[in-house]
Amino acid sequence: MFLKYNGIKIKTFMEEKMRIGIDVGATGIAGGIVDSDGCVIREIMLSTRPERGYEKIVMDIAYIINTLKSRLTENGVKIKNVGVGIPGVADENGDVIYCVNLGWKGAPLGRDLKKLTGLEAYIENDANAAALAEHAYGSMKGADCGVMLTLGSGVGGGIIIGGRLHRGFSGVAAEIGHMAVGDNFYNCTCGRNGCLETFASARALERYFIKLVEYADEESSALQAAGGGDKVDARLIFEAAKKGDLLSLMAVSRLSRYLAKGIVNIINMLDPEVIVLGGGVSKAGNFLLDMTREQVESELLYKGVRHAQIKLSAFGDKAGIVGASLIPAYKANPKE
Amino acid sequence: MFLKYNGIKIKTFMEEKMRIGIDVGATGIAGGIVDSDGCVIREIMLSTRPERGYEKIVMDIAYIINTLKSRLTENGVKIKNVGVGIPGVADENGDVIYCVNLGWKGAPLGRDLKKLTGLEAYIENDANAAALAEHAYGSMKGADCGVMLTLGSGVGGGIIIGGRLHRGFSGVAAEIGHMAVGDNFYNCTCGRNGCLETFASARALERYFIKLVEYADEESSALQAAGGGDKVDARLIFEAAKKGDLLSLMAVSRLSRYLAKGIVNIINMLDPEVIVLGGGVSKAGNFLLDMTREQVESELLYKGVRHAQIKLSAFGDKAGIVGASLIPAYKANPKE
Repeated sequence: MFLKYNGIKIKTFMEEKMRIGIDVGATGIAGGIVDSDGCVIREIMLSTRPERGYEKIVMDIAYIINTLKSRLTENGVKIKNVGVGIPGVADENGDVIYCVNLGWKGAPLGRDLKKLTGLEAYIENDANAAALAEHAYGSMKGADCGVMLTLGSGVGGGIIIGGRLHRGFSGVAAEIGHMAVGDNFYNCTCGRNGCLETFASARALERYFIKLVEYADEESSALQAAGGGDKVDARLIFEAAKKGDLLSLMAVSRLSRYLAKGIVNIINMLDPEVIVLGGGVSKAGNFLLDMTREQVESELLYKGVRHAQIKLSAFGDKAGIVGASLIPAYKANPKE
Repeated sequence: MFLKYNGIKIKTFMEEKMRIGIDVGATGIAGGIVDSDGCVIREIMLSTRPERGYEKIVMDIAYIINTLKSRLTENGVKIKNVGVGIPGVADENGDVIYCVNLGWKGAPLGRDLKKLTGLEAYIENDANAAALAEHAYGSMKGADCGVMLTLGSGVGGGIIIGGRLHRGFSGVAAEIGHMAVGDNFYNCTCGRNGCLETFASARALERYFIKLVEYADEESSALQAAGGGDKVDARLIFEAAKKGDLLSLMAVSRLSRYLAKGIVNIINMLDPEVIVLGGGVSKAGNFLLDMTREQVESELLYKGVRHAQIKLSAFGDKAGIVGASLIPAYKANPKE
C-alpha cells in the first residue's frame, strides 16, 4: 500500500536506515534500496537467463549491488551487508545447497558476492524472504503464526511461528509447494506425484489448460488471444476466465480447488492466524481469492471455530526485494 | 523404556513430585499416577462406552481421579490439579469444543471434573498430550521441533516447535490426520476426501483390506484367523502380512506408502528433527517402520540433506496417561 508513495517520498536518504535487497528469480534479478518503512525507493532489474551459468549471473548480481551501494554512498549512507533471496536453499555460510530453477548446487554465492562487493551477503530462500516482508510490513504484520504462499511458476512457502521465521532442523522448512495434496496427471520436478506446485502454480494452470484444450471440443478466448496453445500463459487464462471463457474457468477453478486443499491442510496442521498469497498467480486478485476462500470454508475441519484469514500479498512484485533486504537483520538475530 | 522398571521401583511417593493423568479414548478411560521420571506407577482402566452419554462418562472419569487422589493422600502426597487428554479439542476454560468420537460438543468437562474431584482439571487434545510425553521423556526428548503421529482408529498429531507445544491461533493445530494426501475411495468423517486418516489409521487398513478381499480371487490367512471379513482387525492384518500373506501385505504396503507421503509432507513443511509414531498401528513396530522409512527416503525433496529421524513411541499405550499428567504444568506455563 505504501508503495503508492514511491516517487513522492520527500525524506532524504540520511534520515533513516537503508537496506539493499536482491531477489534472484529464474526470469529476472531485481535489486532495490529499501527504506525503514519497507518502501523500495530505487530499483534495478536485469534478465537472469540461467543458461548463462552461475558465474555470469553472480557478476550481474554484484553489479546491481555495487550500483545501489554507490547510490547510497553518494548520499552519505554506509551499509555493511546485503540480503539475497534465491529460489532454493542456502546454508549458514551462504553456500547454495540446491537451486533447481537456476541449476545451481553447492555454489559459494555468499563468499563470491563478498569478494565482488565488499559487503557481507546473506542468502535465504525467496519465499522465506517474502514471509519476512509480509510479517514486518505487510499482510501478516504482527502475526504470531502466519504462512506465506508464493504462487509463481512454482509454489514456495514461508512460515512464521512465534513471530519468527521457521527454518527447521536443516533450514529447508516451508517447502509447501511440495506438499502432496492429491493425484495428478503428471509428476512434480521433485519426483513425487500430487505436489501442490503441480496444481496451483502458473505452470500447472497452463499445463492443465492445454490438456483441456486438447481433449475438449470447445473454443477458448485465451487460446485466441495467445495465438496458439504453446503461447498461452497463466495471465491470459485468468483474464479469459474472468470474462467467462469456459475452458479457462475450468482450469482456474481446478487451481483454486487444489489451492484450497493445500490451505486447509495448512490450517489443519498449523492453525495459523493468517495465510498470505503472493507471487504472479496472486495477481488474479479477488477473483481467485473469493473462489478459494469459499472452497476453504467448505472443507474446514472445525466449522464455527475462527480460522486463518486468507489475504493477498501487500507487496506484489516487491515482496522479494523488501524481504531480501530484511535477511541480514534476521540472520544476525533470528530470535527477534 | 523406563516403564520396564514398573513394580521394582523402590522410591516412596513422598520423594518426588507425583501427577495424575487421564486418557479418555473411544474404547477406554485410563488414569494413572505418574512420577517425575514419566513412569506410570498406578493405573486404573474403565470402558468408555460412549453411547452412555457425557454425564455417565464424566462420573467414571471423576471416580478414577478420586481413587488415584486418595491413594496419593494416604501416602501424604497432596495434588492440586489433574490433566485430561481427549480425542478432540477443548478451549482454555476446559470446555470441550468438539469431540467427534465421543459425541461431545460444548461439554463443560473441566468445570464438571472440578466439582466432582475438587481438583483443577486441564483438558487437552490427546495427541498433543502424547507429544508432551515424548518430548519430556521419550522419543523426541529435547528436540526443538518434533512431530508426533498417533496412528489409532483415527490419526492424531502433536507438534513441538521451539521446544513448546504448537497449539495454533484457535488451539486446533496439529490435526495431521486431516491433511489431504491423495484421492481415496471413500470420504473422511470430516467431509473431505484423501485425509491421511483414511489411509494410515487402523480403520483405513481394515477398510482397504476388506475392499481387496471383495475384489481379489485370493485367500488370506488374516481372514481365516478372524473368521470373517467383518471380524478382521488391523492387528490380524499386520500379523498375516509379517508372515507373507499377500492381501495383508498389499494393504499394509498401501498404508505405509501413504503414511510416508504424509511424513514427507511434514518434512517438506516443517523440517522437524524427529517424527514419532505412536498409537495402536505403531505396534506393528519395525516391520512398518522400515517399510515407511524406505519410502520416505525415496520421496525426499532434498536428498543428502539431513532430515527428521522417524522413531517409534517410547511409551506405547502409556503415552496418553503420561502426556495427560503433564498438561497442568504446560497450561500453567506454555512458554516453558
